Amino acid sequence: MIVVKVGGGSGIDVGAVCDDVAAMWNEGREVVMVHGASDETNRVAEALGHPPRFVTSPSGHESRFTDRHTLEIFEMVYCGRANKAIVERLQLAGVNAVGLSGIDGRLFEGRRKSTVRAVENGKTKLLRGDWTGTVERVNVRLLRLLLADAYLPVLSPPGWSAEGAINVDGDRAAAAVAQALGAEALVVLSNVPGLLRDPADETTCVPWVDADAASEAAGFARGRMKRKVLAATDAVAGGVHRAVLADARLDAPVRAALDGYGTVVSHGPRPPAPGPDGPGSPPSPEEAS
Amino acid sequence: MIVVKVGGGSGIDVGAVCDDVAAMWNEGREVVMVHGASDETNRVAEALGHPPRFVTSPSGHESRFTDRHTLEIFEMVYCGRANKAIVERLQLAGVNAVGLSGIDGRLFEGRRKSTVRAVENGKTKLLRGDWTGTVERVNVRLLRLLLADAYLPVLSPPGWSAEGAINVDGDRAAAAVAQALGAEALVVLSNVPGLLRDPADETTCVPWVDADAASEAAGFARGRMKRKVLAATDAVAGGVHRAVLADARLDAPVRAALDGYGTVVSHGPRPPAPGPDGPGSPPSPEEAS
Repeated sequence: MIVVKVGGGSGIDVGAVCDDVAAMWNEGREVVMVHGASDETNRVAEALGHPPRFVTSPSGHESRFTDRHTLEIFEMVYCGRANKAIVERLQLAGVNAVGLSGIDGRLFEGRRKSTVRAVENGKTKLLRGDWTGTVERVNVRLLRLLLADAYLPVLSPPGWSAEGAINVDGDRAAAAVAQALGAEALVVLSNVPGLLRDPADETTCVPWVDADAASEAAGFARGRMKRKVLAATDAVAGGVHRAVLADARLDAPVRAALDGYGTVVSHGPRPPAPGPDGPGSPPSPEEAS
Repeated sequence: MIVVKVGGGSGIDVGAVCDDVAAMWNEGREVVMVHGASDETNRVAEALGHPPRFVTSPSGHESRFTDRHTLEIFEMVYCGRANKAIVERLQLAGVNAVGLSGIDGRLFEGRRKSTVRAVENGKTKLLRGDWTGTVERVNVRLLRLLLADAYLPVLSPPGWSAEGAINVDGDRAAAAVAQALGAEALVVLSNVPGLLRDPADETTCVPWVDADAASEAAGFARGRMKRKVLAATDAVAGGVHRAVLADARLDAPVRAALDGYGTVVSHGPRPPAPGPDGPGSPPSPEEAS
């Protein structure tokens, strides 16, 4: 079982990721997909006259402030646009995919945190009316029900809380799914090669993070990558053999990630390097379509 | 088994329909919901700068011309906005709902009709690039899989074709679902009391249509109601005991419909009238919240 999270950042060809997933599925490998749609959500929110608002916590985490109207736009884009585009692409590749959000069957269940501490102009404020939370439970029974009947689940935020739908982080949700299913690997694809020592330099990708000493790596990760490192570490701590933070822009990006291209998070010993001296053949961003 | 279709017209309180469905479900009745979202799709399409285009066929049927961009907006509103609003409301009422579109698990399968004949300024034109079709098969196995595990399916267009997603009529899709599941009744709720002899006068609701002589009724139905009468007749011809075209604006609208308020389509003999001399108690639009 492989859980593949594909981000919603710019420059990602989700169709190419789907085609790779379909090829694996049609060879008999079980896959569950989880996706984001953040960039498209921002575009649609702007177009609908309700532009996104991002807030920075006192500890430096940036997150989307999700008022009720934002949540509705978020659902339109995540569940209606991105999810169905992936399902359609997989179906066209012969895979019987089923798209679900975290509120369907209470797939991603957590608690709403309705207030958020935000630093604005150097001052810490308490903002109310946020519809955000963290996934605490995965309805693994529903996923197994679908997988047993040969449906490939395509999963999307939002999650479910006792108060209603909540915005949940897709990377953390994917990690929770991988853990709940006892997945062999979690692949987290975005528009960078992996965890970079210098975010401005794509050649500084860290090949391996020891899951038992991940705080150092989380320390120099920036922005969204910090959450991805934490999600990967959580998954491995929860029993997933390895998590790979990898580049969605490569050819066959899921298989490249499984071959070790990207940042592998696992318990030691350090896995062999990919490429001429390791598994697979070295892809390059230039080869990607 | 009851299949409830709720339309996406103005003046409909979908939440009240959900609460009625939830009350029935929690009493142990099996229900499948199918929904529309046409008005909201028009609003969002306007806001996004891609206003809807409706075309009239030579036989007088009006339909949405669905180019690829319209299909994407359609999916955002139907699958992302309307579907998740219903799932959320049902979940808040304690019902474990699962929202799916017709492309998920190829639930509604049909053939794309890429060209449409349209009358414009008195001339018949052939328009290309339409993503529209009719539901020919329902994946009843997936529905039964969910129902057997106590999930209430909430279903939405689009449907699936070999070429990708297609806009399908929600009323016809609901009729196909009712038929495939061998439902006891199909309830089609909209913002009118049922089939009206005079569309301008809500007191002219036809109480009963003999399914064996439905062409007369279809003849004086206008616009969307014509399709609803055809969908109801199809369902009854396919083995559904009765279909009821009824008013979403009543209190407990699903149970009112099952009590006979609205237009009942069935094989004869004519069912007893509802109200003081029949089953249930007479609701009125004024009582509805």
